[in-house]
Amino acid sequence: MDVIQYMQTLGQNARQASRAMARASTRDKNQALLAIAAAIRANRAAIMAANQQDMQNGRDNGLDAALLDRLELTDSRIDAMIEGLEQVATLADPVGEITDLKYRPSGIQVGKMRVPLGVIGIIYESRPNVTIEAASLCLKSGNAAILRGGSEAIAANRALAECIRSGLESAGLPATAVQVVETTDRAAVGALITMPEYVDVIVPRGGKGLIERISSDARVPVIKHLDGICHVYIDEHADKTKAINIAINAKTHRYGTCNTMETLLVHSAVATTILPELAAAYAGLGVELRGCERTCAVLAGINSAIEEDWHTEYLAPVLAVKLVDSMDEAIEHINHYGSHHTDSIISENYSLARRFLTEVDSSSVMINASTRFADGFEYGLGAEIGISTDKIHARGPVGLEGLTSQKYVVLGNGEIRQ
Amino acid sequence: MDVIQYMQTLGQNARQASRAMARASTRDKNQALLAIAAAIRANRAAIMAANQQDMQNGRDNGLDAALLDRLELTDSRIDAMIEGLEQVATLADPVGEITDLKYRPSGIQVGKMRVPLGVIGIIYESRPNVTIEAASLCLKSGNAAILRGGSEAIAANRALAECIRSGLESAGLPATAVQVVETTDRAAVGALITMPEYVDVIVPRGGKGLIERISSDARVPVIKHLDGICHVYIDEHADKTKAINIAINAKTHRYGTCNTMETLLVHSAVATTILPELAAAYAGLGVELRGCERTCAVLAGINSAIEEDWHTEYLAPVLAVKLVDSMDEAIEHINHYGSHHTDSIISENYSLARRFLTEVDSSSVMINASTRFADGFEYGLGAEIGISTDKIHARGPVGLEGLTSQKYVVLGNGEIRQ
Repeated sequence: MDVIQYMQTLGQNARQASRAMARASTRDKNQALLAIAAAIRANRAAIMAANQQDMQNGRDNGLDAALLDRLELTDSRIDAMIEGLEQVATLADPVGEITDLKYRPSGIQVGKMRVPLGVIGIIYESRPNVTIEAASLCLKSGNAAILRGGSEAIAANRALAECIRSGLESAGLPATAVQVVETTDRAAVGALITMPEYVDVIVPRGGKGLIERISSDARVPVIKHLDGICHVYIDEHADKTKAINIAINAKTHRYGTCNTMETLLVHSAVATTILPELAAAYAGLGVELRGCERTCAVLAGINSAIEEDWHTEYLAPVLAVKLVDSMDEAIEHINHYGSHHTDSIISENYSLARRFLTEVDSSSVMINASTRFADGFEYGLGAEIGISTDKIHARGPVGLEGLTSQKYVVLGNGEIRQ
Repeated sequence: MDVIQYMQTLGQNARQASRAMARASTRDKNQALLAIAAAIRANRAAIMAANQQDMQNGRDNGLDAALLDRLELTDSRIDAMIEGLEQVATLADPVGEITDLKYRPSGIQVGKMRVPLGVIGIIYESRPNVTIEAASLCLKSGNAAILRGGSEAIAANRALAECIRSGLESAGLPATAVQVVETTDRAAVGALITMPEYVDVIVPRGGKGLIERISSDARVPVIKHLDGICHVYIDEHADKTKAINIAINAKTHRYGTCNTMETLLVHSAVATTILPELAAAYAGLGVELRGCERTCAVLAGINSAIEEDWHTEYLAPVLAVKLVDSMDEAIEHINHYGSHHTDSIISENYSLARRFLTEVDSSSVMINASTRFADGFEYGLGAEIGISTDKIHARGPVGLEGLTSQKYVVLGNGEIRQ
């Protein structure tokens, strides 16, 4: 069977299964999640052996250490998969929730019911744990899923697919509700993103290049997360302790995450009182500062930022620093250079903080909190399939609710339109 | 200036203006709406003269009567525009609403704030009243808009654009917040739908062909409304009076609307008690019935439906009728042949009605009510820019809220991530 035909078959299966998933009971979905967890526990040795085969192939093909690290399934990563499944089973079922049911003058009662999106295609890199994470979120939200992981992880993904199938079946749900693409042919991705008749939405997870390529070629909506160029703005009216704590945390808590601060903006009126102490703390933590001209005048010996720095997601112990003369200048900078991901103001001034919240055009806007909080778990979503930098449909961390939509429901008593 | 360059300029202007619109106060937006209404009132003669020029050109170019009718601006249509603007001014401002603000264990308080989408491109046919309707909804929802109406209406649209500009300016808002494309070059549409840097979403309004073409070529999200193949299913447990009233209303209240019933499904157990009376009523109203084989056995002398009928949006006094032996068969038919627009069950059975509500995959699902209620005004949205048959972002009637999105807001007190 050629790859296009293979993908069409997966698509048809998924569309079919999505109908059963949409009406599956919460109990059945939870039972499937727990059965998948049990299957992984029972097949741990086989999964690890498959992963070792992937690792061996990866080493033979010269994969770099970072890729091999993400590819590897250790005992603790398998434990985390199992716990993840059990945890998603404990989350509230978003499907079927009816809200805003109100009577209209005509006599009908109108509200909204939360419903699954249908079929979700997920495209990700060679991290087999994402297979289970994506499967569990799609399953719980009543969707069918087609999962296309990186080809380097194919053996482990096949072994995990077996656990998912058996778990779904044991709960009486269609085994095709979650399908793992079991070919490494790259044409599979092209097919997956151009079947609007079978796939309702694509969620790509990976580098910016992958996501841009998918967005530009897709013929179905894409929930996408591009880069995270996050800012902290220390206002003239900032509390110094909060400012320093947050600026340190937002940059150094973890360097490689999308909600890490990449540019620090400081009001010129507090530059000399806050920046030297902050710079010393950064120096102690090994963070390289790249300042605008005026920052360099305050902090002798640091590197100069060039235009490109304001556009850069370093994902590294590097921080761009710029002085501004007003909050308006800060907002202008953020809306222009940022990636509309997460930005925070540090200020005790009510009116300025309130304006910042309104005027910064980002998926998360914060007052006196670390950008590192922009996360599905920290926000209480219970789980996260990604962080959307889109404006349509879902913005910010996407949890179970982001994988659903709302339809209108009308309860009547024989009403007709006059 | 070539058309691509012209559209780029409109795009840049709109992006710029969208920032000011996003932070515009409710008062200023309402003032602009009322000032536009006043400008239209003051320039009624000039607008009508421009429209007469369009009408003359249309007649010279052989436009058909239906097109000329939609193109024409009568006194009462201008009154309706003015009233529409005044009515949108009375609606609640969706922008800035903060919901679900909850404390998290970390100490931060997380909620969602409703925000404009940014720049909305609207593509529509030669109906100058849509120019004002679209402008008012985009303006009130804090978006900038680029409006591209059919070329036959260009003179009237230019005159209306002048009123919009002066109204925006008199309220201190950027005149470029609503821009009417003042060229009839068709390349303008191609440019508008492929500028993701300047346009956040496209709302096409028109025939299915136009919308399919735009969706397939667009490089930005499209809020689209394809066809309306709506069903009424008269269940075994239907109240006969409600069934007949609703079946008549859903088909005959208006023939040309997307929420008009196109296929009637009847449970075989009640076919002989309900169908003859219903058929007589339809006959009296001049509705042609096309039945499945079993329907034809009950209603002698009606035409036979062929496969194509189940797929057809007649927009005419024609109705396809099919007998089914269970609600499951009805749901299967609706989900397969329908357009996921609006479908209604007539039943007094609690469990069946509840299942229908859940299992029919349409943007509006009703119990004991006419499909004709699927409408932004009837639902209480106050206004409607269209009805979405998409699943992503907005489903069903799209009002002011459908032109907005939600960002996360985090209120903190110096919290850092542990």
